[in-house]
Amino acid sequence: MAKIKGNLLYGQSGGPTSVINASAYGVIMEARKSPYIENIIFMKHGIRGALNEDFFFIGNQDEETIELLKHTPGSAFGSIRFKLKDFREDDSNYVRLLYIFQKYNIRYFLYNGGNDSMDTCSKIGDYMEHIGYDCKIIGIPKTIDNDLPHTDHTPGFGTAAKFIINTMMEISYDMLAYPNGKVTIVEIMGRHAGWLTASSAVAKLSGFGPDLIYLPEIPFSIEKFKDDVKKVYHEKKQCLIAVSEGISNEEGIFISSSSGLKDAFGHFQLGGVSSKLANAVSADLGIPSRSVELGSTQRASSHIQSLTDVTEAIEVGRQAVKFALAGKTNQMVTIERVEQKPYRVEYGLHLLSDCANTEKRIPISMINVDGNGVTPELIEYVLPLIQGENPPKFKDGIQQFSKIK
Amino acid sequence: MAKIKGNLLYGQSGGPTSVINASAYGVIMEARKSPYIENIIFMKHGIRGALNEDFFFIGNQDEETIELLKHTPGSAFGSIRFKLKDFREDDSNYVRLLYIFQKYNIRYFLYNGGNDSMDTCSKIGDYMEHIGYDCKIIGIPKTIDNDLPHTDHTPGFGTAAKFIINTMMEISYDMLAYPNGKVTIVEIMGRHAGWLTASSAVAKLSGFGPDLIYLPEIPFSIEKFKDDVKKVYHEKKQCLIAVSEGISNEEGIFISSSSGLKDAFGHFQLGGVSSKLANAVSADLGIPSRSVELGSTQRASSHIQSLTDVTEAIEVGRQAVKFALAGKTNQMVTIERVEQKPYRVEYGLHLLSDCANTEKRIPISMINVDGNGVTPELIEYVLPLIQGENPPKFKDGIQQFSKIK
Repeated sequence: MAKIKGNLLYGQSGGPTSVINASAYGVIMEARKSPYIENIIFMKHGIRGALNEDFFFIGNQDEETIELLKHTPGSAFGSIRFKLKDFREDDSNYVRLLYIFQKYNIRYFLYNGGNDSMDTCSKIGDYMEHIGYDCKIIGIPKTIDNDLPHTDHTPGFGTAAKFIINTMMEISYDMLAYPNGKVTIVEIMGRHAGWLTASSAVAKLSGFGPDLIYLPEIPFSIEKFKDDVKKVYHEKKQCLIAVSEGISNEEGIFISSSSGLKDAFGHFQLGGVSSKLANAVSADLGIPSRSVELGSTQRASSHIQSLTDVTEAIEVGRQAVKFALAGKTNQMVTIERVEQKPYRVEYGLHLLSDCANTEKRIPISMINVDGNGVTPELIEYVLPLIQGENPPKFKDGIQQFSKIK
Repeated sequence: MAKIKGNLLYGQSGGPTSVINASAYGVIMEARKSPYIENIIFMKHGIRGALNEDFFFIGNQDEETIELLKHTPGSAFGSIRFKLKDFREDDSNYVRLLYIFQKYNIRYFLYNGGNDSMDTCSKIGDYMEHIGYDCKIIGIPKTIDNDLPHTDHTPGFGTAAKFIINTMMEISYDMLAYPNGKVTIVEIMGRHAGWLTASSAVAKLSGFGPDLIYLPEIPFSIEKFKDDVKKVYHEKKQCLIAVSEGISNEEGIFISSSSGLKDAFGHFQLGGVSSKLANAVSADLGIPSRSVELGSTQRASSHIQSLTDVTEAIEVGRQAVKFALAGKTNQMVTIERVEQKPYRVEYGLHLLSDCANTEKRIPISMINVDGNGVTPELIEYVLPLIQGENPPKFKDGIQQFSKIK
């Protein structure tokens, strides 16, 4: 089938990462090379922008704005959490999208996101195939949670892990200041997958890191937790704990003092675990404690990016364009780790519908037998992903971010 | 009076900063130059180490360990919160200290800390003068709170401010991702002084920063707060708030959901303000909200140091040695801003007893009339202090910290 000349539509969706905009940069760099891509159009707030005909255009951006995408956290083009119904059930949004695609001659559609976004992308791909509109549809992975299946890891995870590892080291070193310390409980993002929380263990390579780690992959017992804390505190007179926001008990009920609110995808809003556990430590064990909630800083820490992560984020953007131009569609770009030492990856594809709505959790072989730490296999997995620095573009001590017009 | 040959005793006290160890580095560099200082001895956990004869010795440290002090957060030699009684009331600890000073021929005593530590330092100075033991006693300022009087600012503040400014920018940019945002409330350290919270306003120079700022210098009204939030949220559909841990109401009662616990100096343990306010926003205004508690990361953020701050921290250490060798005693090293553009400082001295137990708060001219933000004067004051970078010594993506033996 001959390549079609047309325009490329790119959007971002779901929770931001520190390097999702680097993927946009990769898309732009690669798309500019091709004579088959006439214009690059960006959806404002993901699929909502496409439905509302709310776009940014590459022609309005200066080169500095584009360069700064490599250093800009958040979603420079706006993001959204928006669940598309199956088109067989309700095709109104799809009919609207088709109209927009035709109006703007969109022949390449790239959607940058996590599990839920791959669902959106997959559904649009199915519809366009069903209706017979020729548009190559490729998913670009991103998520700090690292829970997308069929890819060794996801862009965004490496930088978030690097921030958390270095922050845990700093908290740990700070705690050593006093002879009689506290129990410090740091709450870490990741939803149902403990990758980010587990990665905090890498800090221990420096001699300063968490004593205990609690992951959503292991049912949480408050009694076991208190025993663990007592043991460490008795020995060290302090204890640093990394806990995932998504831990739940044997019955699968979240420990989080959740508000009970759900987002558009029916996911519970998580948060508040660390303060709940800190209260238990103080009240039940009589040990001074405090909690740290890093919040969105974990996914926005552009000031301590992993160069490996940035490089791979750019590359998945480039690859998405290449694959689309090669006629691939309804696929997500994947990263395959082909060598560990020296670390080397290759890029591949996997069917979008397989990648959507499935969460890749930590395999049991990476979790210690006590269920309160990790094995060397986890450390080996994470370590290459945090290598190298991409120093911020400071001006007068303040980072410079991209401002899309 | 002729200079006495003897040993130098250095200690750290109070809450750590990201650059207190840079002051230790400055002390070491300057002390090594002098033929009057035979040995450099470090107290382990501040004055407690002196009382317990628990020391580190310069001879046991390798050069790499000393170099890394410039990049190491926390208190590399250990810190303490320890209140000395007046020697006229109970001289037992002073008699013990005199014995130790004589045993180790301590003729230069340098104590690195904040208000409380200057109190300790001042009391020891008074006693040694009273008893007629010749030892030059100099205080070296440090505190992220920036609340020491008689100095333009304190080492530690600049780096903490730089971390907070850049983190607030990241949170702000991250918030822009969604069309309908939340109210995000970030709790910032500083006790009774709002310097660090106020400095978050510098982020706005980039276009991304806090909409509202609440400082301990202004009595906090929950009704006024809710009105402010409603107004911003109505206009922007999101709101980023910086709130000091130490805000209190008209009656002087802390808003913090304090545990009611006091530290050794009788200070209330602060914390929990942001979650309390976030709950009020959600419950009373029905606006989605979340809180961020950065905790000790604020004082330990070695991965984003201000070079100006590190340079000045080294210099106050050097100056302390110089002043002691020049026969000065019972004084604290001060920083005087002699020029704003280009920024230039000189170092001076101020009587220790004047510096102890007094908190320098933000002058009213730096706070806006609404009491929910700052004036350009505050921005101008903070800006020079966050300039320049001192990139971390990464090895395999992980910071290298000093390990004192």
